[in-house]
Amino acid sequence: MNMDKERFSQHISRGFNEELESLRNEVLRMGGMVENHLDIAIEAIVAGDSKMGLAVAGRDHEINQMEVAIDEQCSQILATRGPAATDLRLIVAVIKTITDLERVGDEAQRIGYLASHLASSQQHSDHYHELSELGEHVKKMLHEALDAFSRLDVKDALQVVEEDKLVDEEYDMILRQCISLMMEDPRTIRRFMDVSWVARALERIGDHAKNISEYVIYMVHGQDIRHLGLEEIRQEIGVE
Amino acid sequence: MNMDKERFSQHISRGFNEELESLRNEVLRMGGMVENHLDIAIEAIVAGDSKMGLAVAGRDHEINQMEVAIDEQCSQILATRGPAATDLRLIVAVIKTITDLERVGDEAQRIGYLASHLASSQQHSDHYHELSELGEHVKKMLHEALDAFSRLDVKDALQVVEEDKLVDEEYDMILRQCISLMMEDPRTIRRFMDVSWVARALERIGDHAKNISEYVIYMVHGQDIRHLGLEEIRQEIGVE
Repeated sequence: MNMDKERFSQHISRGFNEELESLRNEVLRMGGMVENHLDIAIEAIVAGDSKMGLAVAGRDHEINQMEVAIDEQCSQILATRGPAATDLRLIVAVIKTITDLERVGDEAQRIGYLASHLASSQQHSDHYHELSELGEHVKKMLHEALDAFSRLDVKDALQVVEEDKLVDEEYDMILRQCISLMMEDPRTIRRFMDVSWVARALERIGDHAKNISEYVIYMVHGQDIRHLGLEEIRQEIGVE
Repeated sequence: MNMDKERFSQHISRGFNEELESLRNEVLRMGGMVENHLDIAIEAIVAGDSKMGLAVAGRDHEINQMEVAIDEQCSQILATRGPAATDLRLIVAVIKTITDLERVGDEAQRIGYLASHLASSQQHSDHYHELSELGEHVKKMLHEALDAFSRLDVKDALQVVEEDKLVDEEYDMILRQCISLMMEDPRTIRRFMDVSWVARALERIGDHAKNISEYVIYMVHGQDIRHLGLEEIRQEIGVE
């Protein structure tokens, strides 16, 4: 009798585990799509390809649909399973993560439009090199954040949080460059305004990757480390 | 016996209702604080008051703390009450709303720093008039979104969603003006870059107010209307 009961609860629990597993997979699938859009948007900037920029901007709704669907999945699980502790933290982290992913999608859309604008209205510039480097950097951060999410790896998540400072510095450098170039030749003002908006969008994506990493730490440790300094975070969770 | 049971379940439910009520009040209190910070940040721009700008930027952690506390409250309720249907939607909406409020706080902090930068490094400009108007507009939107949240008023929430288009237009106008002024006199480039960042921050706050309004509609109707056009939203929820 006892054994039957145990087997029954295992069965229940296996179904629940599958739901959570499917939820995590959906988040990673959404993450993959967002990475793909970002990749194309940056490529459109570097290649000066207006059509490519517009095409990726026009596909943002795919990401939005995934957000809505995953949100629905979270509500279903909350309502039917009444999860607690780690499971509950996973679901709260997912609700927050997909909001950040959706906003990364919005930034990729913005970069796509800016790529089209830059490509069609002005001659190509060598200064997109820095944008491309910043782009590679935040793409790497986003990828590592999603990787930390999939492996629940706090150490890697902390690494991403740390990286964000470097991205902010790169962004500041690009901004200063843009202003210098505009002052040198006011005919370039429009173009370098666009370049600075792209840099800003990329810097924002770095912030979102950082947010996602913080949710990973919250998921694993159950401590809310947002808004703490890095030193405080390390002390809180006991990672050197 | 039946009556006792009924009284007991009413008691349980009363405790639960009080928790939900307290949660809603905390969100409104956080909203009030965010409105206050935004108010001061805009005032610092208009008055050219560097000290005021820095002071409000330095107080952002108060908002962050509220977000963490309310998040914790949500997790508690989810874990102990296993809410369903409307109650569950309220809590999911709160989790999302406070993320947006926290980001409005970040934008207010950014505006505070920009106010300090604008005030200390350059002469005052008449062109802050447009910023001030845009600021009033998004403050109104944010206030109405919070009001719709407190009264669960779908019609007012839809109004805010609609307002956001006007804010986007005002923002575009300011941006075009900034570019013209920079081209006329390249010595003003730095200043009008700052002005355009302030405008962008305000435009973003409009987006957040719109997001919050969409969560209100979701809370009441249980339909996810994010990413739908206004016409589709009206059809979905049957408001003319």
